[in-house]
Amino acid sequence: MLRLMNNMENCIFCKIVKGELPSLKVYEDDDVLAFLDLVAVNKGHTLVIPKQHYYNLEDTPEELIAKVMAVVRKIAPAVKKAADTDGFVVTQLNGKTGGQVVPHLHFHIIPRLKDDGLKFWPQAEYVEGEREDYWKRILAEMK
Amino acid sequence: MLRLMNNMENCIFCKIVKGELPSLKVYEDDDVLAFLDLVAVNKGHTLVIPKQHYYNLEDTPEELIAKVMAVVRKIAPAVKKAADTDGFVVTQLNGKTGGQVVPHLHFHIIPRLKDDGLKFWPQAEYVEGEREDYWKRILAEMK
Repeated sequence: MLRLMNNMENCIFCKIVKGELPSLKVYEDDDVLAFLDLVAVNKGHTLVIPKQHYYNLEDTPEELIAKVMAVVRKIAPAVKKAADTDGFVVTQLNGKTGGQVVPHLHFHIIPRLKDDGLKFWPQAEYVEGEREDYWKRILAEMK
Repeated sequence: MLRLMNNMENCIFCKIVKGELPSLKVYEDDDVLAFLDLVAVNKGHTLVIPKQHYYNLEDTPEELIAKVMAVVRKIAPAVKKAADTDGFVVTQLNGKTGGQVVPHLHFHIIPRLKDDGLKFWPQAEYVEGEREDYWKRILAEMK
């Protein structure tokens, strides 16, 4: 509990929620806040977060994720239109190796532009039978 | 309606749902299906889809997105452990410019590995006042 409190006290998104740091808000209700990311993959890049502090997808209650995603869905068309494009990406990073920097669950809405250089698909190639191995390992982990 | 039917008839994910194409399933219920992606960003890369055919995030009912995300949350820890990592990414692509290939809503669960070469952050830089401009444009689009 002490650790959770410390996390919350040092969390920049909690500070944004509390109004201790400024943000350009695009949506707010009792549970969810959306604001422009300070660093943008593409211009218009927006973050959607639960107001309550949770680390990542695994830690956050299902019902709260549903509320956050409803806001993502509500806002994304506006982000897309604002960036004058027909494409966008919703991305959510988990854990240090996952690229997560701020330890407070957040969904990125990133408008995509032609030739923006984003590379989502450096493909791994399974060798014979390896895809099945991964499948079995996932099933085993879910038991 | 005819166009929707055509989409559904040609949609490879609909064929997977109907069992007309094989897949390595990791989860299935009345509304949601999860299976290993045939092409993998990293090994263990899993897709989660609604069984019903919808194009993307904007077209899919909020309640169904909540069900799909509940499955993403349920499965992701297993995908992560199966790939022997502490990080993963949830990504969902929308529209042609967004990189969407299959025209049926799908969430990617991608385990991240150290030095896997994924580049999510080729940063755009706002010039003075431009971030505020984007903010206003998003707000305007939401009216």
